[in-house]
Amino acid sequence: MDGMDAISVIRTKRDRGELTAAQIDWVVDAYTRGEVADEQMSALAMAILLNGMNATEINRWTDAMIASGERMDFSTLSRPTADKHSTGGVGDKITLPLAPLVAACGVAVPQLSGRGLGHTGGTLDKLEAVPGWRAALSNDAMLRVLEDVGAVICAAGDGLAPADKKLYALRDVTGTVEAIPLIASSIMSKKIAEGTGALVLDVKVGSGAFMKDLDSARELARTMVRLGVDHGVGTVALLTDMSTPLGLTAGNALEVRESVEVLAGGGPADVVELTVALAREMLAAAGQTRIDPADALRDGSAMDVWRRMIRAQGGDPDAKLPVARETRVVTASSSGVLTRLDAYAVGVSAWRLGAGRARKEERVQAGAGVELHAKPGDTVVAGQPLLTLHTDTPERFDYATEILSDAVTIAPRGTAFEPTPILIDRIGPTA
Amino acid sequence: MDGMDAISVIRTKRDRGELTAAQIDWVVDAYTRGEVADEQMSALAMAILLNGMNATEINRWTDAMIASGERMDFSTLSRPTADKHSTGGVGDKITLPLAPLVAACGVAVPQLSGRGLGHTGGTLDKLEAVPGWRAALSNDAMLRVLEDVGAVICAAGDGLAPADKKLYALRDVTGTVEAIPLIASSIMSKKIAEGTGALVLDVKVGSGAFMKDLDSARELARTMVRLGVDHGVGTVALLTDMSTPLGLTAGNALEVRESVEVLAGGGPADVVELTVALAREMLAAAGQTRIDPADALRDGSAMDVWRRMIRAQGGDPDAKLPVARETRVVTASSSGVLTRLDAYAVGVSAWRLGAGRARKEERVQAGAGVELHAKPGDTVVAGQPLLTLHTDTPERFDYATEILSDAVTIAPRGTAFEPTPILIDRIGPTA
Repeated sequence: MDGMDAISVIRTKRDRGELTAAQIDWVVDAYTRGEVADEQMSALAMAILLNGMNATEINRWTDAMIASGERMDFSTLSRPTADKHSTGGVGDKITLPLAPLVAACGVAVPQLSGRGLGHTGGTLDKLEAVPGWRAALSNDAMLRVLEDVGAVICAAGDGLAPADKKLYALRDVTGTVEAIPLIASSIMSKKIAEGTGALVLDVKVGSGAFMKDLDSARELARTMVRLGVDHGVGTVALLTDMSTPLGLTAGNALEVRESVEVLAGGGPADVVELTVALAREMLAAAGQTRIDPADALRDGSAMDVWRRMIRAQGGDPDAKLPVARETRVVTASSSGVLTRLDAYAVGVSAWRLGAGRARKEERVQAGAGVELHAKPGDTVVAGQPLLTLHTDTPERFDYATEILSDAVTIAPRGTAFEPTPILIDRIGPTA
Repeated sequence: MDGMDAISVIRTKRDRGELTAAQIDWVVDAYTRGEVADEQMSALAMAILLNGMNATEINRWTDAMIASGERMDFSTLSRPTADKHSTGGVGDKITLPLAPLVAACGVAVPQLSGRGLGHTGGTLDKLEAVPGWRAALSNDAMLRVLEDVGAVICAAGDGLAPADKKLYALRDVTGTVEAIPLIASSIMSKKIAEGTGALVLDVKVGSGAFMKDLDSARELARTMVRLGVDHGVGTVALLTDMSTPLGLTAGNALEVRESVEVLAGGGPADVVELTVALAREMLAAAGQTRIDPADALRDGSAMDVWRRMIRAQGGDPDAKLPVARETRVVTASSSGVLTRLDAYAVGVSAWRLGAGRARKEERVQAGAGVELHAKPGDTVVAGQPLLTLHTDTPERFDYATEILSDAVTIAPRGTAFEPTPILIDRIGPTA
């Protein structure tokens, strides 16, 4: 009762006041220690969601989350570092080709990743489709792979921003995930604590993304870029389209296969375009502009790093990838121009086929997912295959097909249609 | 995941939607059963506080709270019933003279009361200053006292609106008490479940009240009157002043003494005025308008009921009331007209002297409190006693005096000053 108690902090934000630095430091620390109860923090999170936080508050909140755990240090590496974070989307396998590609161009990529929950997949789940590959590395082992190979993709340790870990789990069950100040500080506290030299954010917009509208996505991007810059991490954000899945696959092994195609110089145009755009931003942010990443895809050097990166974590890059036990084809119901193939529906369908999990403790199916045979803008003929569903549990086909029933729009042939470009906008530090 | 889960209910209110009847029934019931967690309900309470509920939602929420427990039935009584509820204030001992007064006029008063928490006192704490008096009665014993004596003041059983009990405790620690829909449904669910035939609400406004401004108090009053009427309980609200303490005492035994003075035909004018006004409303609401309650104060019939009511619960109406071990006098610092004697400061001072509790498990001091020697509008002379502080723990005098340092305003003699009337407004079913 010495002026610093949970109720007074909650009331300040509830009544649209500005939280002081001392209030923020105290409440984040006391929550991490268990002195502030879950029901108090969730009330505060809802007040923040509805009443917002200003830039000073968000900065301090991020500092407090960083201070709750350890900080990593990559300054002993012989190369500059750059990291990428995506806000998540359907078919977003970009980290897989991107990390080795940037490493092949001379910049080290320490990619601490997560698992999927809900309709967007997780990078670690995808890589675990590669036989033998293991996500867990000690900090020392991670530094070693980073120095030797130039890129590492592994699970974040428990030591980074434990306050965020606890708060995220709480927000997940209390309807308080969708608060831009909390999303921004959650992402950025981990990336800043991780110690990357530069950061490129892929902020997705559209039905399959967390942010459904451009204004929210832009605000989130601006908030994160400012947080990065204020903490001495060169940060840039690309706003990219997530109204339709990225590439032609959503599912773990399916996406690894597509990523390897990109590393081999092929792959779907949108995946290649986004991978190269993000690589250019990461290289520029790390001060490395001599090499064009498109060359490193063509000349096989990115593929070399991929193979070494997979091997360094016990994986066999030559092993056959897992395949689902059964498939079902969804066909076009009419002829014309495909004007819409909804990312969210494809994501939920892939998830329910077994590619994702509804609860943290569930296991994913490596082979499950959805394969696309057409993309918006393509001409289709009635009866031609549009999608192939993959699963080890065919009893889920009916439900997964039902989810997709309203996901496709085919306009009469000749209808003018311009697909949304993948790159929508770029938010730099001066924006 | 069949469409009814805590997160979807929270999201509906968070996004300014209207909760459906099914959502409200489910979330109140599931919270009472422990299926909805505290951290989920507190996030929902904050969303309700910030985004509000409409009349339909508040009605249903109240129904759901009533349905969580038992309902009492006074229809077997030979007399009509009327109850009073005050939103709480400093020196608010009105229930003590009011219940026997209304009973003396032929209407039974089943007064289920609570204990004090914070700066406002509790009716049960006050009556427990009477030697031998016990607050706990079984439902049967309560009905017997009500039939025999005509008035009973006792603790509400655990069976009435258990959802409210659990939710109130949660709101208390999560900064979500001050939500009009939740305050209204909390009060009215208990009063409706209690089964009274008519209800008069004393909604207090001012520094010593829960509602600091008239607009909020009016909204709360309208919401509760509508809830009562919609549930078949004739309900009227009086808006009354709480900028200065009611009467000349704040503290348990001190207030019993003042209540007995009123029942004896004396007592401070504001306490008498409010008691009689509320009694008239209760009698009118119960259809009993033949007797003027002012007469029942004068002729001793209200005092007779008081004595029988105290005896029925083991109390001795003739016993000497407890007196605090020590007193300290606070004097006027200048001469002139007392224009302000702040209710909140007096309430906090009395509380800290031992009249109230900071935590539910604390015991109160029967003799502690603050006695007033002047009221706003009175002329005072520098050095005359303004307040007498009473406590068994004299080490608290300095702190209690400090709390009062800014509570008093004395204007130069001759300053025009009109004290706020005790009765501000009346909100009936048609308002």
